[in-house]
Amino acid sequence: MTVATYTVTGMTCGHCVSAVTEEVSAIPGVSGVEIDLSTGAVVVTSEHDLERTAVAAAVDEAGYRLV
Amino acid sequence: MTVATYTVTGMTCGHCVSAVTEEVSAIPGVSGVEIDLSTGAVVVTSEHDLERTAVAAAVDEAGYRLV
Repeated sequence: MTVATYTVTGMTCGHCVSAVTEEVSAIPGVSGVEIDLSTGAVVVTSEHDLERTAVAAAVDEAGYRLV
Repeated sequence: MTVATYTVTGMTCGHCVSAVTEEVSAIPGVSGVEIDLSTGAVVVTSEHDLERTAVAAAVDEAGYRLV
């Protein structure tokens, strides 16, 4: 079990949080996604270490940016 | 055909615009909804005059507020 925290910019409301949660949750191995809208912190729980590029791609797919 | 402009507060992104568009479009008689996110202006085209309370209820349902 791995827990990693990323920062995502551009999220402004609960819909944005839902969109990022949905895309990041779809990454194979991910079991949990918690997002703090006010800080942009995205805490991802997964079975194994994730490739940062996979997380960045999921965030991009949702329409936001990993920093 | 009637065109009326309302102001909605709280919308911060395209998802918010989509949510308001969806709810207001569902009001019977409405044929068009155009929203300017930067100003909160919601331009509604409908077959007949709408009750303001119906528009307010739809906006509320979407999670925002008619002012």
